[in-house]
Amino acid sequence: MVNDIDVTFAALADPTRRRVIELLRDHPLRAGEMAARVGVSRPTMSNHLKALRSSGLVDVALSEEDGRARSYRLRPERLVALQGWLSELEGHWTMQLESFREHAERSVEGQS
Amino acid sequence: MVNDIDVTFAALADPTRRRVIELLRDHPLRAGEMAARVGVSRPTMSNHLKALRSSGLVDVALSEEDGRARSYRLRPERLVALQGWLSELEGHWTMQLESFREHAERSVEGQS
Repeated sequence: MVNDIDVTFAALADPTRRRVIELLRDHPLRAGEMAARVGVSRPTMSNHLKALRSSGLVDVALSEEDGRARSYRLRPERLVALQGWLSELEGHWTMQLESFREHAERSVEGQS
Repeated sequence: MVNDIDVTFAALADPTRRRVIELLRDHPLRAGEMAARVGVSRPTMSNHLKALRSSGLVDVALSEEDGRARSYRLRPERLVALQGWLSELEGHWTMQLESFREHAERSVEGQS
């Protein structure tokens, strides 16, 4: 079964999709504005937005200015989940280096 | 051109590869130990380790105890780069929510 974090990582493996996330960090944008800013066609942007929506990284809302125009906004929840996974590892990076050093030292002692 | 962060995200989109990263956070391990702990065959683990090595997430060192045995260790650099990308966005999450609220309020005022 594909889980959420698999889908999040896969969605973010594409540079255009990461660029969309970066564009949306400040405020919601319409698909056409993003296509122009990223320099891709509307259909290409539409496919990327579809992938980002199905991964839960963005959602869509009718614009308040114009009920017909859809703007996209960032949903931070999945990014927060990624940060959580990385933070869980981070606490151990220093320990890991330390442990490796001790392991090496023990081995050298073992050989003498 | 495929860049480093694309490769990192793609490598981490697989749950077995993330499990390897989690196993390696404390100390280096051999491929056989990881295959047993994850519950996959040796060839499957070997393919995943190849992908993790080529993405720069792990590297290999001859064991100090036995010059023939290769153990794998975590290379935190790519994970630090991911954290950097997420942190860059994170500062804007609150702003983004605030901006969206203001945008909605301005629109409501515009309509009255």
